[in-house]
Amino acid sequence: MTPTGPVPGTRDIDGAAMAATRRVRASLEGLFDDGGFAFVHPPVLAEPGPFLARSGEAIRQRMYIFQDPGGREICLRPELTIPTARLYLERLAAKSETPARLAYIGPVFRYTSESGGDTPLREYVQAGAEWIGDVDAPETDARILAFALRAADAAGAIGATIVAGDLGLAAEAVRTVPVAPRIRARLLRQLWRPDAFLAALDATRTPRDRAGEANADSRLAEMGAESSRTLIEEILALVNVRHVGARTADEIAERLATKAEVASDDAVSAEIAAELRAWNEIRGDGASVLAAARTWMRNFRSDDGLRAIERAESRLAALATSGVDVGRVTWDLGLRGELEYYTGLVFEIRARHAGKEIVVGGGGRYDGLLRSLGAARDIPSAGFALTVTHLARIIAEAAK
Amino acid sequence: MTPTGPVPGTRDIDGAAMAATRRVRASLEGLFDDGGFAFVHPPVLAEPGPFLARSGEAIRQRMYIFQDPGGREICLRPELTIPTARLYLERLAAKSETPARLAYIGPVFRYTSESGGDTPLREYVQAGAEWIGDVDAPETDARILAFALRAADAAGAIGATIVAGDLGLAAEAVRTVPVAPRIRARLLRQLWRPDAFLAALDATRTPRDRAGEANADSRLAEMGAESSRTLIEEILALVNVRHVGARTADEIAERLATKAEVASDDAVSAEIAAELRAWNEIRGDGASVLAAARTWMRNFRSDDGLRAIERAESRLAALATSGVDVGRVTWDLGLRGELEYYTGLVFEIRARHAGKEIVVGGGGRYDGLLRSLGAARDIPSAGFALTVTHLARIIAEAAK
Repeated sequence: MTPTGPVPGTRDIDGAAMAATRRVRASLEGLFDDGGFAFVHPPVLAEPGPFLARSGEAIRQRMYIFQDPGGREICLRPELTIPTARLYLERLAAKSETPARLAYIGPVFRYTSESGGDTPLREYVQAGAEWIGDVDAPETDARILAFALRAADAAGAIGATIVAGDLGLAAEAVRTVPVAPRIRARLLRQLWRPDAFLAALDATRTPRDRAGEANADSRLAEMGAESSRTLIEEILALVNVRHVGARTADEIAERLATKAEVASDDAVSAEIAAELRAWNEIRGDGASVLAAARTWMRNFRSDDGLRAIERAESRLAALATSGVDVGRVTWDLGLRGELEYYTGLVFEIRARHAGKEIVVGGGGRYDGLLRSLGAARDIPSAGFALTVTHLARIIAEAAK
Repeated sequence: MTPTGPVPGTRDIDGAAMAATRRVRASLEGLFDDGGFAFVHPPVLAEPGPFLARSGEAIRQRMYIFQDPGGREICLRPELTIPTARLYLERLAAKSETPARLAYIGPVFRYTSESGGDTPLREYVQAGAEWIGDVDAPETDARILAFALRAADAAGAIGATIVAGDLGLAAEAVRTVPVAPRIRARLLRQLWRPDAFLAALDATRTPRDRAGEANADSRLAEMGAESSRTLIEEILALVNVRHVGARTADEIAERLATKAEVASDDAVSAEIAAELRAWNEIRGDGASVLAAARTWMRNFRSDDGLRAIERAESRLAALATSGVDVGRVTWDLGLRGELEYYTGLVFEIRARHAGKEIVVGGGGRYDGLLRSLGAARDIPSAGFALTVTHLARIIAEAAK
């Protein structure tokens, strides 16, 4: 037997990289302890359901789902926010005071296609923190942004920066424009997926010229959600597609329905579509981004939108008094995060590595997640995670 | 969606148990650092081959083996000695000086059947140390035993004890007794499995009374190893048995061959079988065990056996000067360890918990493993691992 090397997409860590990994872990553990976070350790093995239902395509498509030797379908956790939220609900919610501050460090698993050279990492360690139950969202958002930058600094990625967006503001923008209710509902459902959102905008303006397709699509639309989903599941089962959850069938039904409804719905005008695209391109420092967003909302005379911007302004003011350099945060109203459960603030943490800027972490607000996992009501919550494996590589190479 | 709890056989860790887990980790990390061990971090995802070929049934039958989304068959590591040995060979052997001292901390995964109440743990954290390339085996064995006790103490399992055996000595016992060569070879192959060893002893003394069975068995024996393995693989494939490695087929062939060969071989005499059973029942403190073993070897006038006992005596002498209380180590010549790759010293580390003695770790010598993974020659190696998850539970409950 000859040595086979680690499985593609995984790495052996030793020597300087191991020392760097331990330094990153120790700094983050120290910072989280000092910040009053309680560490939790949910298992690596998990039920696939909550991830499939809540985390979004970017993760669903990359999950390791398999049968254990007893035939139970399980998965390797692809992230730690859902397991931490589940643990909180099942073990801590009844006895702990809110707000709760939880932290974790551990491996996560996301499949990536093998590329020509180095397969992108499929197994890596994340360290993260979650703020559960803080009612003052703007204040908490600002704290999280400041804490995430301090954590990146503590881990050795000095001068890391953040690009932040806001799904709540983006939702207000969609609620503000004059479009038909079904179109609005669809745009809101696709809001967290930039590509699908733009596709939904496009779909509403594409003339229907393929009669047969339109016919099939409208039949589905006539069948109603439940029946069309069942039909799609049956079709997928016939062609042997694996792991077809209700979710996947729903998404296909949704897309076909999008096309079908165009015939019966008023399309988004070219002008409105352009405005929504323009919203997504607002980017810059906090003050200028909010000024542009305010102008946009004023155009549409949206009082709700202006109130949402006031909340974003108080977040910005809280960030300014947090002690971090606000110049390290760029705002990008087109940023969505790739997780379906985000509802407000979303952000990426970036660091320079080997001459490029790479994403070393991210986070966001997920006010609806805990209810979807079983809580009696929405629980305002937000958090972030840093990828220890990336940070360790950065500091190990900086030390060379 | 309602909360589902963690997957059976896994546990959420928080609060006092989390604090205990971190204390155990930190003490062991500190001890391993002070001992001059270099930490390594092989991935959780691994090739199943080396475990299937080398670790033994107790682990093979409990492995999580599955296809990743790209169709590659992978597994979750069931232990960390094989991954650490692979990492050593691929990354360190060429550039590091031997002896190498490596350490690890991380999760391992072994399936267990669901029982009525609490499913036994399927996912837990192990912390371990490996001594690779030390040529003085008795001295190194003694160091490892002493270090394992100090590690258990440091982790908070004060007064932990060890039960130790020696597969090398047991092999000398088998080499010593007058039996036919094929019988001896079979007993040596089954040495590491107490049940299979006793079954092999029994098989050699069982009169054959089922003619059809004997006929089929002897046909297999006549076919030779290669052809009989192929036949068995085909039979297993026909009945749809999954994960049939060459290994499994070999084992079945071996068992059938055992039965078939009895007809043609001289059986072990009742007296020799009793002597080998008596060997397995030698148990007590080091001095009395070695005295009994010496008497046993003298009976058979085995010079090789007496030399092996001299090496065991120098191990005992080294242990006495190591500073640990030798009264904490009980020797049991019937102990085998459950790993096929062990070749000499094997031991279990035990601690008291909730009124019972539980196994919190184990270790042994595996001089042949690195060669089987691709090294050019045998590399004398040994190590041990402690289960952080068990130790944390012990100290968390002791603190109540």
